[in-house]
Amino acid sequence: MQTITPWIHKVQYYETDQMQVVHHSNFIRWFEECRVHILDEIGYGYDQLEAAGIASPVLTIEAKIGKSVHFGETVKIRAAIEKFDGIRLTLKYEVLRESDDVVCCTGKTGHCFLGADGRPISLKRKFPEVYEAFLALPKDFVGGGENDHQ
Amino acid sequence: MQTITPWIHKVQYYETDQMQVVHHSNFIRWFEECRVHILDEIGYGYDQLEAAGIASPVLTIEAKIGKSVHFGETVKIRAAIEKFDGIRLTLKYEVLRESDDVVCCTGKTGHCFLGADGRPISLKRKFPEVYEAFLALPKDFVGGGENDHQ
Amino acid sequence: MQTITPWIHKVQYYETDQMQVVHHSNFIRWFEECRVHILDEIGYGYDQLEAAGIASPVLTIEAKIGKSVHFGETVKIRAAIEKFDGIRLTLKYEVLRESDDVVCCTGKTGHCFLGADGRPISLKRKFPEVYEAFLALPKDFVGGGENDHQ
Amino acid sequence: MQTITPWIHKVQYYETDQMQVVHHSNFIRWFEECRVHILDEIGYGYDQLEAAGIASPVLTIEAKIGKSVHFGETVKIRAAIEKFDGIRLTLKYEVLRESDDVVCCTGKTGHCFLGADGRPISLKRKFPEVYEAFLALPKDFVGGGENDHQ
Repeated sequence: MQTITPWIHKVQYYETDQMQVVHHSNFIRWFEECRVHILDEIGYGYDQLEAAGIASPVLTIEAKIGKSVHFGETVKIRAAIEKFDGIRLTLKYEVLRESDDVVCCTGKTGHCFLGADGRPISLKRKFPEVYEAFLALPKDFVGGGENDHQ
Repeated sequence: MQTITPWIHKVQYYETDQMQVVHHSNFIRWFEECRVHILDEIGYGYDQLEAAGIASPVLTIEAKIGKSVHFGETVKIRAAIEKFDGIRLTLKYEVLRESDDVVCCTGKTGHCFLGADGRPISLKRKFPEVYEAFLALPKDFVGGGENDHQ
Repeated sequence: MQTITPWIHKVQYYETDQMQVVHHSNFIRWFEECRVHILDEIGYGYDQLEAAGIASPVLTIEAKIGKSVHFGETVKIRAAIEKFDGIRLTLKYEVLRESDDVVCCTGKTGHCFLGADGRPISLKRKFPEVYEAFLALPKDFVGGGENDHQ
Repeated sequence: MQTITPWIHKVQYYETDQMQVVHHSNFIRWFEECRVHILDEIGYGYDQLEAAGIASPVLTIEAKIGKSVHFGETVKIRAAIEKFDGIRLTLKYEVLRESDDVVCCTGKTGHCFLGADGRPISLKRKFPEVYEAFLALPKDFVGGGENDHQ
């Protein structure tokens, strides 16, 4: 099983809104930051997938915000695979406040894979090494949190 | 029942990403644009709520993206109340391509209400007129789409 | 001289920051909204330019923010041509608060034109009709403001 | 003279636009990321300034984009003080591609300082330690680039 480090994000001023907290749309962007990070870690970054003609659009988004995040804080985002069959991929995420590992937000994104012609493909059949690399991603959150679910 | 018009949004260049489509995080922002719009329409805009010391943070987010949206297109966003008991509010949304009323994205956001001290309040007890105004919001999508579910 | 209408923008909650005003980066985005709008008005929208293989990247940005803009306000953005020789284009902008026509922000963006191969082109030589259309854009702000400089 | 490290930013997918490059508005946001970073480094972070009742709004923005920045790249942003008299502050910035230290963008932002009542203040008179700390910021770009101008 590949070791995956959490993605560290320093909260930016432009991410706040006038409620004095991070605007909720940024959690969705942080999920993407983490997704990009873990693909980089397994050696199949988005840029390489795109160079290979593979796109992986977001089909579904879910987020639950339990605690507001503030400017001046740093967060860790962790991802794990919830479901993957080579055609559909569901990732899950946790956003933790770095100072005390409190989980502020959890969420999921669902993806398919498109080939160069924009039509859905099976990673398993068309890009077996990429498929294998994805399979090696952790199924549960590990690294970076006190309460790892192993 | 209050008549509510859809929110019209012209897709902006800065909303696209290098997949040549609108970045998915913008759907969450468009939900907010529509939410702000319908509150304005019922006479209780966010700015007025905030002036009255009421905040309404986003607790949950859901979105399903069925069709990509592109620069050069205009979309209509419609909202309706899925659930409201004075303490929790769930809104649902539809993003339609204006040219042909195709639904590109659907979603939901869940909210609570906080008073000036940052603690949850019951709109029903504390702000009965706001509560009544929210109750008058449509329970299903109406206006602006060919396939209104009435 | 082509008549150009100002671009109307309702300030969004996600555009605010915790200083309770619109984050300054949005003025740059609003300049783009207006630029896209006036190109649509002269019949050469960005999407059409891109379809013709013309890109028009931003090379320089300038903005002066004189008054903060707030959530709940609506602004008008007006553009005019400061300089255009078929190779380089400089546009200037004014952001006015709609309620009282107070100018909140002024700015400029500088552009070149790239062909399908990503190299600079002369609009005048390669796309004379587009060149002519750009020439017809107003040289000073007109429409939508009390203090038009004519 | 305080040592200041450059701010490292990994380009995010949501920062790209359909021209396949980073949208220009993000340079303005990166300037802010760097500004926040160097204030943290000198021990007077934005959050501390705000806690002390000091706001520092952006009055002017300038940027020159010489090279496009792409997804998959990492950039370093460096800042230095161009002018500071305790009342007005002008910072200058350089965005360098990390892989080869090529300068992709340069820029400036101008600021004033507001007290808790929203009126301009002299840092020098009202917050002499903050004034001294700002004075200690480098006057030219140092650190993180091959071609340091020392």
